[in-house]
Amino acid sequence: LEHELILLANQVLSAFKKRGLTLAAAESITGGLIGHVLTEVPGSSDVFLGGVVAYHNRLKEQLGVAKQILESEGAVSEAAAKAMAAGVTAQTGADVGVAVTGIAGPSGGTKTKQVGLTFVAVSDDRGTVSEAHIWRADRSTNKLLTAQAALRLLLARVDAQSES
Amino acid sequence: LEHELILLANQVLSAFKKRGLTLAAAESITGGLIGHVLTEVPGSSDVFLGGVVAYHNRLKEQLGVAKQILESEGAVSEAAAKAMAAGVTAQTGADVGVAVTGIAGPSGGTKTKQVGLTFVAVSDDRGTVSEAHIWRADRSTNKLLTAQAALRLLLARVDAQSES
Repeated sequence: LEHELILLANQVLSAFKKRGLTLAAAESITGGLIGHVLTEVPGSSDVFLGGVVAYHNRLKEQLGVAKQILESEGAVSEAAAKAMAAGVTAQTGADVGVAVTGIAGPSGGTKTKQVGLTFVAVSDDRGTVSEAHIWRADRSTNKLLTAQAALRLLLARVDAQSES
Repeated sequence: LEHELILLANQVLSAFKKRGLTLAAAESITGGLIGHVLTEVPGSSDVFLGGVVAYHNRLKEQLGVAKQILESEGAVSEAAAKAMAAGVTAQTGADVGVAVTGIAGPSGGTKTKQVGLTFVAVSDDRGTVSEAHIWRADRSTNKLLTAQAALRLLLARVDAQSES
């Protein structure tokens, strides 16, 4: 899966480069895996500016996630993912920002939020889109699946952009 | 090497947890690999707050690396690594911060700075220490070797702390 991810990262970087777009990432559940995979590709610095690993909630707040969202909806929520994506885009000056937040497991599940629940969001000048997933694998695979979903959403978003 | 890295990450997290210390990372050359490896370990969120992937120089400046350092000594320098480590510690409120900056290759080398040149720095309340390496492997392995050096320096620093 990690080898597949690097191929996918290559596609994302090519699509961005062709359109002259830059990218930033705000990662919670993946802890840096998305940036790691993107930077496996030589020349990725033409597109990928970097971003924030927002593991602790204080770092999510610094990224622009309102304390109220963290308290009412939680760090693993659509609202948090969207605010992280918009925040990292604004803070880095990137054209597009991607964000992920979820419960990798094995612990961390609650009555209302099960292990594997994950939100992915992409933000650009047309707004912010998001999607929810529930992974049912182990911690490490849940992280890989999240990175894959994030890269796929980026690719879909950039492809849609060139059609509009 | 990646499996070894996770064992090393486990040691670092245990040493920090035992001492009640928190950790943040500022990653350039590794692109997120250090955070990824740390967050492979269940319970890492007790210690690892997150940090910044400062790939583009603008993100290094936001982290507190003076424009003057970037212009005179460059982004791959001891001064930049130390400023990144001190900056991520201050910005996240972590007890200890680690930073890495280097030239992963295959391109990016200059007359005075060869591919593989890498600086690792650790910052805590006793100050900031750093070390230089020149890796001679491929891009992906240079990233892994940098993450390994960063984790080892963290471990040495925390072990020294408990002796003092």
